[in-house]
Amino acid sequence: MDLNKPYLSRKNGDLWLTEDEYDNLKVSYRIKDVIYDQKSSCQDVMILDSYNFRRMLVLDGVVQTTSVDGHIYNEMISHVPMSIHPNPQKVLIIGGGDCGVAKEVAKYEGVEHIDMVEIDELVVKACIEHLPEVSGRLADPRVHYIFDDGVKFAASKKKEYDLIIVDSSDPIGPAKVLFEQSFYESLHEALKDDGMMVCQSQSPIFHADVMKQSYKRISGLFPEVKMYTAVVPTYPGGLWSFTIGSKQHIKPNASKVRDKNTKYVNEQIVESCFSLPQFIKEML
Amino acid sequence: MDLNKPYLSRKNGDLWLTEDEYDNLKVSYRIKDVIYDQKSSCQDVMILDSYNFRRMLVLDGVVQTTSVDGHIYNEMISHVPMSIHPNPQKVLIIGGGDCGVAKEVAKYEGVEHIDMVEIDELVVKACIEHLPEVSGRLADPRVHYIFDDGVKFAASKKKEYDLIIVDSSDPIGPAKVLFEQSFYESLHEALKDDGMMVCQSQSPIFHADVMKQSYKRISGLFPEVKMYTAVVPTYPGGLWSFTIGSKQHIKPNASKVRDKNTKYVNEQIVESCFSLPQFIKEML
Repeated sequence: MDLNKPYLSRKNGDLWLTEDEYDNLKVSYRIKDVIYDQKSSCQDVMILDSYNFRRMLVLDGVVQTTSVDGHIYNEMISHVPMSIHPNPQKVLIIGGGDCGVAKEVAKYEGVEHIDMVEIDELVVKACIEHLPEVSGRLADPRVHYIFDDGVKFAASKKKEYDLIIVDSSDPIGPAKVLFEQSFYESLHEALKDDGMMVCQSQSPIFHADVMKQSYKRISGLFPEVKMYTAVVPTYPGGLWSFTIGSKQHIKPNASKVRDKNTKYVNEQIVESCFSLPQFIKEML
Repeated sequence: MDLNKPYLSRKNGDLWLTEDEYDNLKVSYRIKDVIYDQKSSCQDVMILDSYNFRRMLVLDGVVQTTSVDGHIYNEMISHVPMSIHPNPQKVLIIGGGDCGVAKEVAKYEGVEHIDMVEIDELVVKACIEHLPEVSGRLADPRVHYIFDDGVKFAASKKKEYDLIIVDSSDPIGPAKVLFEQSFYESLHEALKDDGMMVCQSQSPIFHADVMKQSYKRISGLFPEVKMYTAVVPTYPGGLWSFTIGSKQHIKPNASKVRDKNTKYVNEQIVESCFSLPQFIKEML
């Protein structure tokens, strides 16, 4: 195990992970144990056991999801659009290597087919084996794993999906292309005539420029656009934004999320998540 | 200026503040400049200019409020109860040394008298002079500053206030007593027959025990109790809880917050903030 990484350090005998994504803010987590540590062709993949957030998926030194709060992001990016589309049968997930989004979407019986296009097979393997709280050790026959470039895959599809969920990491490194105009255009083409897309559109505080750009680009393509927020404690600043672009449907039917065994989402959250703080409304 | 403090360090020529409140999580802010640095009889009071959050009030090494996100906490603890009480004329603020809560409450013309009881005069002086984005250099004749122990002050009052806002720091050190049963009892007695109180009830993630205890204690005293949340980026985990205990009124009249020059609060936020994530509902 190679602990000689810039984001790992030892202090008084304890191992610490320090996220190095921001120049002016550093968050450090005390680590109990290194569970998994491999280099894929894309990135450095680790599963660390932390004191506060238990097991965490860490890519190139940045926390992506944890046993303690990973469900918040995965539930919010899945159940909110699932409550809006009246009958999503064919779903495409781009990214989502921790399998949490596929796990949430698979809770809906009406879903017949889920394509999950993740560029890094190692992430999926690591999370299925070592991060069961997030991945649920997903083994649903409706989920089809495709280990490929999500941009290329989406561009090859025409009017095929009811719902596309873009579960990307931050717009640096491999995920940068998932925030570009041409990518949103190909999603629009890959969707059926009443299809819809959702993406994580970053922090309204730390990446307001990315958030505004995503909203603007999606607004230029889809007649119905809505932003919503949730709080993800292990993302900087906590507050996180999601943007829906829809060809037709936009009103949530909150009762659809009932009895879905969720820990963050419920009917009131699905309805209230679209109430944006004043500073975000003014940005858009 | 004494920079020989355990929570300040230099790295490659840069000054960093590292909050040392949690054993397993450390947040570090890169600091441009030390604006103010004094020791009061209660605590170590600093105003630091940071890169991400501009000026920050730091007490004993813990960030209390900042120029960038301080308004979120101050608006949420003020405007939500102000929208519920139909005619709050006399308001008591316990703590609130940064003056942000008093500034928000003073935006309501119907308010005739605000008592602000802060134990540390130095905090008020520092914030009025060096943290104008939060304090607004508050100089409203309706605001009466009382530099005293909030517990003792509240215990001396009977049926006097329409609204009491407890703007405390964390339940360690001087603020510990502001989370105790006997304190909530004295607030109940200090309120008029249709009065209400609100307090910050800590993080549902990092201090779930304190949050549940506050909710339970307040529920035992007031017929109407409601919890709401907001996202405060400089508080650990981002998600923060507030608890209202009311003798009578409990339904917000959201239109009251209109045109109050707020940056986070608006009518939709006042109505949606009571929609709690499923894990909090299950805790209560």
